[in-house]
Amino acid sequence: MAAIITLTTDMGLADAYVAAIKGVILGINPEAKLVDISHNIAAQNIQQAAFVLSAAHEFFPRKTIHLVVVDPGVGTERRAIILRTPLADFVAPDNGVLSYVIEQDTVNNTSLDQTAPIQTELAPHVEAYAINNPKFWRSPVSNTFHGRDIFAPIAALLSLGFPPTDFGEAINSITMLPVPHPHQPQDNLIVGQILHIDGFGNLITNIKQHHLPKIKQPLTIKVGNHTIQGLSTSYAAGRGLIALIGSNGYLEIALKGGMASAILDSRVGSEVQIKVTTRKDKPAQ
Amino acid sequence: MAAIITLTTDMGLADAYVAAIKGVILGINPEAKLVDISHNIAAQNIQQAAFVLSAAHEFFPRKTIHLVVVDPGVGTERRAIILRTPLADFVAPDNGVLSYVIEQDTVNNTSLDQTAPIQTELAPHVEAYAINNPKFWRSPVSNTFHGRDIFAPIAALLSLGFPPTDFGEAINSITMLPVPHPHQPQDNLIVGQILHIDGFGNLITNIKQHHLPKIKQPLTIKVGNHTIQGLSTSYAAGRGLIALIGSNGYLEIALKGGMASAILDSRVGSEVQIKVTTRKDKPAQ
Amino acid sequence: MAAIITLTTDMGLADAYVAAIKGVILGINPEAKLVDISHNIAAQNIQQAAFVLSAAHEFFPRKTIHLVVVDPGVGTERRAIILRTPLADFVAPDNGVLSYVIEQDTVNNTSLDQTAPIQTELAPHVEAYAINNPKFWRSPVSNTFHGRDIFAPIAALLSLGFPPTDFGEAINSITMLPVPHPHQPQDNLIVGQILHIDGFGNLITNIKQHHLPKIKQPLTIKVGNHTIQGLSTSYAAGRGLIALIGSNGYLEIALKGGMASAILDSRVGSEVQIKVTTRKDKPAQ
Repeated sequence: MAAIITLTTDMGLADAYVAAIKGVILGINPEAKLVDISHNIAAQNIQQAAFVLSAAHEFFPRKTIHLVVVDPGVGTERRAIILRTPLADFVAPDNGVLSYVIEQDTVNNTSLDQTAPIQTELAPHVEAYAINNPKFWRSPVSNTFHGRDIFAPIAALLSLGFPPTDFGEAINSITMLPVPHPHQPQDNLIVGQILHIDGFGNLITNIKQHHLPKIKQPLTIKVGNHTIQGLSTSYAAGRGLIALIGSNGYLEIALKGGMASAILDSRVGSEVQIKVTTRKDKPAQ
Repeated sequence: MAAIITLTTDMGLADAYVAAIKGVILGINPEAKLVDISHNIAAQNIQQAAFVLSAAHEFFPRKTIHLVVVDPGVGTERRAIILRTPLADFVAPDNGVLSYVIEQDTVNNTSLDQTAPIQTELAPHVEAYAINNPKFWRSPVSNTFHGRDIFAPIAALLSLGFPPTDFGEAINSITMLPVPHPHQPQDNLIVGQILHIDGFGNLITNIKQHHLPKIKQPLTIKVGNHTIQGLSTSYAAGRGLIALIGSNGYLEIALKGGMASAILDSRVGSEVQIKVTTRKDKPAQ
Repeated sequence: MAAIITLTTDMGLADAYVAAIKGVILGINPEAKLVDISHNIAAQNIQQAAFVLSAAHEFFPRKTIHLVVVDPGVGTERRAIILRTPLADFVAPDNGVLSYVIEQDTVNNTSLDQTAPIQTELAPHVEAYAINNPKFWRSPVSNTFHGRDIFAPIAALLSLGFPPTDFGEAINSITMLPVPHPHQPQDNLIVGQILHIDGFGNLITNIKQHHLPKIKQPLTIKVGNHTIQGLSTSYAAGRGLIALIGSNGYLEIALKGGMASAILDSRVGSEVQIKVTTRKDKPAQ
């Protein structure tokens, strides 16, 4: 069975960069099955790449290898790493781009008030390796394109069954971006933020179903100056701005027949509030 | 021989959606050969997806499976269907996105004056099935992404040889969009409309070679305020605005060295007229 | 081992054109491994396609087949060709789109002052064939899409091992675009030009490492009204506008954390000057 290698980059598809990576991989493992996750990550946007990768990777078969090249620090002292989880291998710069993937496996391992990248210890079921053995790198290595000269050959060799220890030594911490979690300053108030704005203009928040009350209670969602009553069950239900649980399990804000992002000032990081109306809040009936 | 599964969506390539579909398919049939038709269909534009799919599908080998996820009604009562024609299988929402494919096989089965989607009976050589057996769906099914949770596993299983009856029951009508046909209000006048504007800015009409006079007679093409004399044989022939028979057999309007769409106000649905100069129209020579 | 066929076109991914080419190829060789180099070449921009193809092709395994469809002259008398080099096969219109590939193999075979496409004799280690035997073309051939009806079947058949002589006769010259080389009007001055602006806004010049002084001497790079002192070793080093040797070996101009192309007026063809400070230029210390 052919190994799957996915690619997530900020390189776009107008240049030769992505093709060069693919050519290098196929030169080493001609049977590798290459699948693009996205090459349209905004230039050097590590947080966006982290989100998109995490939203895609869980749908791939076990032992898939995910190659990530969003790498503003290429050519500097930033480490490159292999992360091996029970589900997959990741080859990436150690710049936080794997934060959301790691977070999915190990909820609450980062502090809620983290505001800058930090070194985080790994959970017991994941392994990481610093890529520091140049044996299998292309030669010479371009100082501006480790994706092609270091990551690509390593991903290809991993797909042939080479062990990660061939490429460097085990490490026990990697760099984590702040992964924002919703908080609950009052019993009936959940405050989250926008993690991602997708191509349909939907605003995807960090609030998941399990953050919401288990018993169905009326919800009021506040985003920017807009207020939305209750959750819709589909994009086609309701009218105007709606809120619903999207396909990755996050609460999202959408505009029926249009782009919510076009009528809201919200950006990644903007706050979203959910007020829960409890029985005693309700006016007497 | 590996089965081919094509994908046509409006999801773009900046998000994780398309990759999630591919991951699900490869988890079920790791040998499937995935080919993108387009992920740049305008959001929720069923007519555009119907055109692009029809323009591509005929060039794929028999038994190709075409997965289409342009699905504004996802999560509502709209049906999902499998269409099996002598050429290929299609897995799609029953929202008209297969209209042009069906029309190609069965010219004139829809009324010229149809203006809204209707239920249309199928031609004898095609079969359709309503996808209503949840046995093979992913669980839980996201209400906003049937492409990933319902269509993708079914396309993958069809590619492994599972019969369509495993996924739902045979139906004998599906939803058809209006498929505009040219008409001929006078002997020497053919009136068509624009079906598609391509990435080169070419305006592709619904007028085909067989609608034009069999004997070569001078033609005058009128589009917006512009008039074009005669047909060119290539994009490089002629100058300024030209008309020619394009690669899918439709008459199209192009601008040599530029984008016709940039200098014409025409849109999808805009009228194009062709006046045929017969001998008696000609001035004496 | 499955043959690799790459695709480089200006057709974008919103239409059916690229998929039609892929469908035709897979109908002939279902095992072909299709890899996109780029479909976002600017419409009819032969020079851009020539650059991107040359920047990608060297990273693919030997015997890769590169299909190029940037073909403004389709349907006219322009020839179509197969080029066979020690590294790969190319199937393309004979419009200069292979100029940079050929140039890489045979430095200095074109005149520095060439300003228009010319017929150039081939180096001994490459072969070329005019595609003029219609035996294997699709029928009928569309006058506007030889990529689908002529090039695609030929690429697929080459990938199955058919010899190029099945498709046409050997020729000994092909069309070359001017490939600009840097020149050195004074001992301490190197004048080059911009070959390409990539998706990160980096300006890639035609000046390579070997054009620069072998001994490390201070360099002053002048582009538009801006002056840059010395070369950086990575995109993250330095600040503001920087110059560095990029991943294809060309000197490029970048803007740390932004797009150099957004603050410079430079375009493809704009001049870049490098002044070398020799010892005697230096002020006394």
